[in-house]
Amino acid sequence: MKELFANRVLANDTSDLDEIFKNSVNPENISFAGGFPDSRRFPDADLKQAYQTAIDQQGPAIFQYSATEGPQNLRQKLADRMQSHAGVTATADNIMLTQGGQQAIDLVAKLLLNHGDAMVVEGPTYMGALAAFDTYEPTYYEVPVDQNGMNIRALRKTLQAHPEIKLIYTIPDFHNPTGTTLSAKRRQAMVALANQYDVIILEDSPYRDLRYSGKSVPAIKHYDTEGRVIFISSFSKILSPALRTGWIVADQPIMSELIGLKSAIDVQSPNVTLQAINSYLDQHDIDAHIATINAAYRLKRDAMLAALDRYFPKNITYTRPAGGFFIWVTLPSDIDAKQLLETKVLPQAHVAYVPAACQFASRTVKNGFRLNFTSLDPVTITAGIKRLGALLQANQAVAPALPLKTAIQF
Amino acid sequence: MKELFANRVLANDTSDLDEIFKNSVNPENISFAGGFPDSRRFPDADLKQAYQTAIDQQGPAIFQYSATEGPQNLRQKLADRMQSHAGVTATADNIMLTQGGQQAIDLVAKLLLNHGDAMVVEGPTYMGALAAFDTYEPTYYEVPVDQNGMNIRALRKTLQAHPEIKLIYTIPDFHNPTGTTLSAKRRQAMVALANQYDVIILEDSPYRDLRYSGKSVPAIKHYDTEGRVIFISSFSKILSPALRTGWIVADQPIMSELIGLKSAIDVQSPNVTLQAINSYLDQHDIDAHIATINAAYRLKRDAMLAALDRYFPKNITYTRPAGGFFIWVTLPSDIDAKQLLETKVLPQAHVAYVPAACQFASRTVKNGFRLNFTSLDPVTITAGIKRLGALLQANQAVAPALPLKTAIQF
Repeated sequence: MKELFANRVLANDTSDLDEIFKNSVNPENISFAGGFPDSRRFPDADLKQAYQTAIDQQGPAIFQYSATEGPQNLRQKLADRMQSHAGVTATADNIMLTQGGQQAIDLVAKLLLNHGDAMVVEGPTYMGALAAFDTYEPTYYEVPVDQNGMNIRALRKTLQAHPEIKLIYTIPDFHNPTGTTLSAKRRQAMVALANQYDVIILEDSPYRDLRYSGKSVPAIKHYDTEGRVIFISSFSKILSPALRTGWIVADQPIMSELIGLKSAIDVQSPNVTLQAINSYLDQHDIDAHIATINAAYRLKRDAMLAALDRYFPKNITYTRPAGGFFIWVTLPSDIDAKQLLETKVLPQAHVAYVPAACQFASRTVKNGFRLNFTSLDPVTITAGIKRLGALLQANQAVAPALPLKTAIQF
Repeated sequence: MKELFANRVLANDTSDLDEIFKNSVNPENISFAGGFPDSRRFPDADLKQAYQTAIDQQGPAIFQYSATEGPQNLRQKLADRMQSHAGVTATADNIMLTQGGQQAIDLVAKLLLNHGDAMVVEGPTYMGALAAFDTYEPTYYEVPVDQNGMNIRALRKTLQAHPEIKLIYTIPDFHNPTGTTLSAKRRQAMVALANQYDVIILEDSPYRDLRYSGKSVPAIKHYDTEGRVIFISSFSKILSPALRTGWIVADQPIMSELIGLKSAIDVQSPNVTLQAINSYLDQHDIDAHIATINAAYRLKRDAMLAALDRYFPKNITYTRPAGGFFIWVTLPSDIDAKQLLETKVLPQAHVAYVPAACQFASRTVKNGFRLNFTSLDPVTITAGIKRLGALLQANQAVAPALPLKTAIQF
C-alpha cells in the first residue's frame, strides 16, 4: 500500500514528535516537553455561558453553513484588536478565522510553496511549523536566533545568496522554542529586506499577549509597507486550544487566495465555535482574563529561572524570556540532547524536554533543548529542574573537558 | 505579489463557485444552487444542551489540547455506527474525526497525490472535491455516471489504459450532483478492480442516511478485502454543517499517515465540539432525528419531481433520486447551461442552479445542471421550477431543432 503514498508522506518522519508526546503524557515523568497552557486557567464557566448565549441569540441559523472567512462580528473585533494590541491597521476584510494558528501556517505554505521552493526559517523554530511546511517539500535556509530574535545580518546574507527565496517564517514574540523577542529595529530591517528581495513574511505570533515583563513591541506587520507581511495568531494560548481558533491578517491579493484555499480544505471553521468566541468577547474583558493568566505564568517562569540558576551547572546557558511558554537551554557542544534524554534524563531523572534536533530544519544542531513552564505548578517545576540539574551535574563530571563551543549563542 | 504564489493557486480559478454562492444568497432569486440542509431542521435546543452537558461533565479539561484523531468515546460510537448502518467492521482505531467531510478529502489527496499523479473522478462529481484535488495538481480521468452510479465498464477500461492510476474518488450514495446510487454489484466490482490494479478507493458518503425510498446498500468499504477503501462521512447533513465535523474510516497503514497529516494541518479538531456531539449522541436518538429530516426532505423531493414532470419540456430529462440533496437535469446537447443561466435564467426567471461545466474535471460537458431540493419549502420549489420550466419552454421554441444527442445519458 505504501507505494501509493505521495513523496511528501514517505519523506516525512514524525516519530520524534510521537515520542515526545508519549513522554509528555506518561504520568511517571515531569514533562517540560509539551506546549500546553495551564488547564486550571481555562474560563470554562464563561465559555459554557458563551455557547449558550450564542445559540440562544441566533437560533437554528447558527448551525447552517456560513462564510469561509468567518463571521463579520468576530472579524471586526479582531481587526480592532490588531490596531489596539499590535499597532496593525486592518479592517474585517483583512481577517480570516482558521483552525488554530496551525491551519494558518498550512494555508500560507499552500499559497506560496511549490515543491523545492526556497524559504527561510529560524534555527531553531516551532517544530509543528516544520511539520506543516515539510508536506510542501520546500528548500529550507536556516537563519540563527539570538537574544534579540532572528539575526538580521545572517538573514541579509541568506537573501543575497539565494534570491529565489519566497518566504520568511518567523515567530517574533516570545519565540518558540527560545523565548526571545525580535527587537523593533530588527522588525523594521526585516520588512525592508522583504521589500528589497520580494519576499513574503509569515509572522507567527501566538504568544504576543503573554508578556510577564518589559514593554510590547509593534508587530512586524505594523512596519509593512507593501502588503507582504501575513500575521497569524490564535485563541489557543489566551483562551483555549480546544476551540481550535486562530486568525490570519493579510492584505489583498493574498487574503482572497487564502479564502479560496481554506474553502477547498474545510469549507469554513465551525460557526458555532466562532459565535461562542464572539459572545465571550462581548460578555467578558479578555484582557482582564489574560492578565490573570500572565500573573500565574510569571510565577512559573520565575520558578523555573530560579531553579535553573540554582541547580544547573554553570557551563550550561539558558534564555530569560520576558513572556511566552518556553526557555531554551544550550548544552556544551559535545552533548547530544536527544541521546542524553533517552539514555539518562528519562530513565534516571524521569524528566522530559524537547531535544534540539527536531526543532531545526537542518536537524544538525543537537546540543540544546526546549523547556515549557506554563503547564506545571511552581513546586513541580522546581522539583523537575532540580532532578534534571543533578543529572546534568553528574553527567558533566564524566564528560570530556572539551573547550566550550556552543552551536547556538545566547 | 502574485509571482510568489504557488502553481496550484495560479492554475485554479474558483470564480465559478464564487458566482454560484453570490446567486444563492441573493434574496431576489429562488436558488437551487446551494447544497444546504434545511435550517429549520437543526436540533438547536438539543445541541445547546449537549454543549452544556459536555462542559459540565468534563470541566476545564475539555478546553485543553487532546488527541489528533479525536476522543475515544466518539470514535467508538462511530465505529459501532459503521457496523450497524453501513456493514463496515471497524474499531475506534479505524476512525479519525475531521473538519467536515471536506477536510477528509483534502487529507486523502495529501496522502496520495504527487503533482501529476493519476486519479479517477466521476463525471460529473462534487465540485468541492475537485477544488480540493486541484490543489494537488493531479491528472484526472473522468468516468461517466449513469442511473446505477459510476459506469464500471468504463472504469475498467480506464484502469486498463492507465495503470498509473492511484485513486478512485466516488460518491456512491445519492451522488452529488446526480442523486444516483451505485448498485451493490458495482460496488463489489469496483473493489475487485481496485485490488487488481492496486488502487485506493475514496468512498465519500455524506448523504448515506438520507434515504427517502428503496433499500440501503452496504458501503463499498463493506466489500473491502485489502484495506484499500477509505470511507468518509459527516455530521453536516444529518446534524449541522456548522459543527464542521466529519470522520474517516481507514485501515493501517493509511490511518496512521492520515493522523500525522492532520496533526501538521490543524493539530486536531475542536475537542469541545466533538464532546458536544458525543453528548448529543448519548442523550438523543440521532436516527429518530434523521427520520424527521427524511420525512421533510421526501416531501421536498416529491414536490420538485412533480413540478419537473409538470413544467419542464419533454425533451429535457432528469434523475429521480431515492435520497440525498440533488436532482440532475440533462438539457439537449446544444444548450450550454452556464450561458443559459447567465443570459436568461437568472435575469429573466430569477432562478439559480449549478451549471454542468464546473462539476466535470474535464470542464467539457455543458448541457446539464444540478438542482438542490432540501433548503427550500415545497411551495417555493414548485414556484421556482415552474418559472424555470416556462423559461426552458420559451427558450426551446427558438432553439435550432437539432437531433437530441445528450452528452450524459440517464
